[in-house]
Amino acid sequence: MNSIEWMDGSVRFLDQTLLPNEERYVDTDEIEVMAEAIRRLQVRGAPLIGIAAAYAIVLGVRKAAGGPRRLFADALDASCALIASTRPTAKNLFWAVERMRNAARLNTHMAGDALYASLVAEAVAIHTEDAAMCAAIGEHGARLIPQDAVILTHCNTGALATGGIGTALGVVITAHRQGKHVSVFADETRPLLQGSRLTAWELRREGIPVTVIPDTASAVSIQKKNIALAIVGSDRIAANGDAANKIGTYGVAIMAKHHGVPFYVAAPSSTFDRAIAHGDAIPIEERGREEVTMCGPVCVAPPDVNVYNPSFDVTPNELISGIITERGVLLPPFTESIARMFDKRGAQ
Amino acid sequence: MNSIEWMDGSVRFLDQTLLPNEERYVDTDEIEVMAEAIRRLQVRGAPLIGIAAAYAIVLGVRKAAGGPRRLFADALDASCALIASTRPTAKNLFWAVERMRNAARLNTHMAGDALYASLVAEAVAIHTEDAAMCAAIGEHGARLIPQDAVILTHCNTGALATGGIGTALGVVITAHRQGKHVSVFADETRPLLQGSRLTAWELRREGIPVTVIPDTASAVSIQKKNIALAIVGSDRIAANGDAANKIGTYGVAIMAKHHGVPFYVAAPSSTFDRAIAHGDAIPIEERGREEVTMCGPVCVAPPDVNVYNPSFDVTPNELISGIITERGVLLPPFTESIARMFDKRGAQ
Repeated sequence: MNSIEWMDGSVRFLDQTLLPNEERYVDTDEIEVMAEAIRRLQVRGAPLIGIAAAYAIVLGVRKAAGGPRRLFADALDASCALIASTRPTAKNLFWAVERMRNAARLNTHMAGDALYASLVAEAVAIHTEDAAMCAAIGEHGARLIPQDAVILTHCNTGALATGGIGTALGVVITAHRQGKHVSVFADETRPLLQGSRLTAWELRREGIPVTVIPDTASAVSIQKKNIALAIVGSDRIAANGDAANKIGTYGVAIMAKHHGVPFYVAAPSSTFDRAIAHGDAIPIEERGREEVTMCGPVCVAPPDVNVYNPSFDVTPNELISGIITERGVLLPPFTESIARMFDKRGAQ
Repeated sequence: MNSIEWMDGSVRFLDQTLLPNEERYVDTDEIEVMAEAIRRLQVRGAPLIGIAAAYAIVLGVRKAAGGPRRLFADALDASCALIASTRPTAKNLFWAVERMRNAARLNTHMAGDALYASLVAEAVAIHTEDAAMCAAIGEHGARLIPQDAVILTHCNTGALATGGIGTALGVVITAHRQGKHVSVFADETRPLLQGSRLTAWELRREGIPVTVIPDTASAVSIQKKNIALAIVGSDRIAANGDAANKIGTYGVAIMAKHHGVPFYVAAPSSTFDRAIAHGDAIPIEERGREEVTMCGPVCVAPPDVNVYNPSFDVTPNELISGIITERGVLLPPFTESIARMFDKRGAQ
């Protein structure tokens, strides 16, 4: 199952809003369809949003590839602006847009077709690098997973959220493939139920035992079901390790701490935003009220009631036991370990 | 709005499974319909379950009222057994069954019709006493509510859950009627959404500002929305103050503690179970998987996935700031304050 694929001039993606009831792929060569897919969460998960953004920009400049240089530059600007406007929180989105811009900047000397080809190559590189980062995150993270571990996770962080095996779920899958007999409690993750709809679906395909719980049962599960650790993904990590992730993650982190259970965040380096010192400054998307008042066709609240529906919350660094990246596991104090990771890479 | 009414030989109740979309009342003179209504949560909320149980037993013995004493006793036994089997956690259910049994025991000397009338009177007394207890809980609790308080609550504990203005919600309503300008954040309370479906509906009728949040947004709401306190109901309180309540309550209590926000439980004395020393011994109902895998007609998880769906969790006494009863506010240490409350009453 590929959540997204480059089809030589068009993109094929799995419409995740229809899971687990229907496995429908959408083919498109229009950036507007991709932008809408990101906005509507047909394509979601911070790393996958980055990959989708890169491919979308390729689609956006495609028609201008044979034309004058100036029109190409205009198409690139417009494409980057459109994609950057789709969702505000995932750092990977802006990181991918920036990488595409840089690739174009480095190759301005090229003819239109070659420049276009270089952008295709950059998008494909973002995709394949993400797969490699998932594999590396899985390897590093699996060392933290004990034999027979029962693992709590929130939202979806697997193949559906990335270009590879996933971040937090990639760690679980790697431990499983190593024969560790892991099992998972998956928070359903209201309002959009990525846990019950997507994580449960993925883990069953992988043959990993999974139990779906309402988010309200996370605390009692940690208390009674022998949960060894909690592991989640992230959409943006500040320079001090504060980590934005799907709404509810902060609560899970508090509950894990209360029970003395380790709480890990797994994310590629593209998720870090060193320009942001503290989690308070991470922009948090608020989404529509209907996500809460409607459940499919069923109205589950007074239709005009006030709703507060932030799509993310920020887990402060002191609740995080470790951050699993493709370059290793960062430990507290995170301000130092994060700086060290980036400075080391910068020096290579 | 009366969630339940004695109609001189039959019971009228509001089918809460249809709210907020439809306000439909059911009239019945059959105990089986009442038992099913309790089982299916058409009638729910610990105090209301107690009231419904009492009326149901009246319906169960009604046909035997004119007949031989032995048949009446058999009908009473069968009715009590049926009702006691409907749901396991709410103490009020067993308390009401016991009161009905005691009323029959005290009046065995009466003729059948008079005995029946005494049971009607006992059921009506349970109902009216509950309304009075709600009013008293509201008065005691409102003293704990500051002016302009933003209050977090979980599940539904209002008129829909009781024979009066409610327990936790009765406190909020009393503070509102005192002119304190309170407002409420209502957890939607998955899986059955009593918060968004019922609490929001009730508070709006009462003119109290309410904001519905997914349960995943409780932590960030406490963190960012200036929540002054959390207040919930209870289905059974052990002798040490450990309190069983709707699944998710334990998590809210942990999050409140983490943020230094007071966490109150409001419940009548009929909710206390002094025969149970610790919360661990409270029987916890587990309900069907479909409550989690289905949302109305929509399948929101792989249809045959494992589900863990406990209907209640237990908040340990150390997370509780106070227990608001009709006789006053109990403070820690609860083993002592609970014993004192019951011993004082016993002495009157």
